[in-house]
Amino acid sequence: MTESLNHPQINDGWFREKETLWPGQAMCLKVKEILHVEKSLYQDVLVFKSETYGTVLVLDGVIQCTERDEFSYQEMITHLALNSHPDPRKVLVIGGGDGGVLREVIKHESVEEVTLCDIDEAVIRVSKKHLPGMAVGFNHDKVKVFIGDGFPFLADKVKSFDVIITDASDPVGPAESLFQVKYFELMRNALRPGGIISTQGECQWLHLSLIKEVQTYCRSLFPVVEYAFTTIPTYPSGQIGFTVCCIEEGRNLRKPIRRFTPEQEAKLFRYYNAEVHEAAFALPQFTKNALAE
Amino acid sequence: MTESLNHPQINDGWFREKETLWPGQAMCLKVKEILHVEKSLYQDVLVFKSETYGTVLVLDGVIQCTERDEFSYQEMITHLALNSHPDPRKVLVIGGGDGGVLREVIKHESVEEVTLCDIDEAVIRVSKKHLPGMAVGFNHDKVKVFIGDGFPFLADKVKSFDVIITDASDPVGPAESLFQVKYFELMRNALRPGGIISTQGECQWLHLSLIKEVQTYCRSLFPVVEYAFTTIPTYPSGQIGFTVCCIEEGRNLRKPIRRFTPEQEAKLFRYYNAEVHEAAFALPQFTKNALAE
Repeated sequence: MTESLNHPQINDGWFREKETLWPGQAMCLKVKEILHVEKSLYQDVLVFKSETYGTVLVLDGVIQCTERDEFSYQEMITHLALNSHPDPRKVLVIGGGDGGVLREVIKHESVEEVTLCDIDEAVIRVSKKHLPGMAVGFNHDKVKVFIGDGFPFLADKVKSFDVIITDASDPVGPAESLFQVKYFELMRNALRPGGIISTQGECQWLHLSLIKEVQTYCRSLFPVVEYAFTTIPTYPSGQIGFTVCCIEEGRNLRKPIRRFTPEQEAKLFRYYNAEVHEAAFALPQFTKNALAE
Repeated sequence: MTESLNHPQINDGWFREKETLWPGQAMCLKVKEILHVEKSLYQDVLVFKSETYGTVLVLDGVIQCTERDEFSYQEMITHLALNSHPDPRKVLVIGGGDGGVLREVIKHESVEEVTLCDIDEAVIRVSKKHLPGMAVGFNHDKVKVFIGDGFPFLADKVKSFDVIITDASDPVGPAESLFQVKYFELMRNALRPGGIISTQGECQWLHLSLIKEVQTYCRSLFPVVEYAFTTIPTYPSGQIGFTVCCIEEGRNLRKPIRRFTPEQEAKLFRYYNAEVHEAAFALPQFTKNALAE
């Protein structure tokens, strides 16, 4: 029985998100049942069944995914990159221990091998138990899993991947190094010719100066650097962005170069489609102004 | 002094939004000071100074606008319609008592007269006092204000307006009638040839069946019917949509037919620009599927 489980952020039947990185605002979700509480080697892990968002995974007090809206993030961080590559065969996912990005990557038949490297086995273990709709991504012959730090893992790899997706949590805690210039340099070196990266890029309504900083150092490393975003209700301020870069000069990432048919889109996706791909790069004027400065 | 003010939704220094229309989730904002509490003739009115979102207006327990992000909604509901019209001269705003839509409408030099009709004088009065950055819209020669119900107000008007913007609260309480087919029929009759409406259209992540219902009856009234949306952190689930319709067959509302220069865009807007206009109509696959059924 799980009735004895409790968590400091769940009170009176409601979970309240930690506000460290977005002071003065807090998303609350009504809790049906606490399913799992753990201090892993790296972070505080909480899984609960919510009233209206399905099962929710929380790391270090911050919502990572809910069954109701996870598809928006997983699809966009994956397909913005993979549909901008003419023939993605080798794919690397850093982070993403819930399996959602893997689930999306293997929708592309061209992919021969996808490697996932997450620092925390607890996330994978807990997702396999409580988030089967996401962890389904692990059940595929093409998938290889490494438990470990993405940073040293990448240092070994030279010209090895067509696409690298960094599905990181926020830059406080275990994911901190994944927002540093050195990490982007390692990713660049690990890309094969024409390679593309897509990384969790934070929210323009909250962290515009961090976004600008990342964009700036990416421009010193990659000839093509873009910022895109998607809507997702349970991420702070209701959206999340992506830093998308290509090592080949002159490439346009804003339009998919591979397209699914409308029938395939309706079958394969719940958020992504070719129009949404293009729209994701249309930035509000305040972001456009900030990134142009 | 205002130290004695209190409100049932403000406890321990935090405001918590009412969850009636989005069960199981609640946005919380940290409160610096309660500025105004009132039961008007039509609704519960609360104004508070927040820690990180500036001044916040709340009607019947639901956030209507915050100084930090209001521009997204005001600009998009206005310019999607006005920039889709070749020569908007007469504009009507139903609701919008905070003045934000007026502020946007008068950015268009073609506009000769803009009429605002809001049912609740308290909203206008309170906004003039506490939200001067929005209520500035009232300080213009071209603006006429009527206090009253938009429904009978519209019934009198035939072929009178080029654009009608309905800046309504949610369809519970005083704005309920503004989501009914009869209201859309009145708007249609009040439009001059080539006229366009833009109405608050709720959130696709929360109220897809209502959106579908509105789209369906709009299609029986207008030859051109679209749904668009914008991101806005303090609206439920971080975004809000717009029903945009035109009475002239064959018109494409998805691309602005009048454009500001990039320099004007950078000066006039904080959210809207021509790219964002087009992107606002690119709907996630789940919405596309639902509206196509």
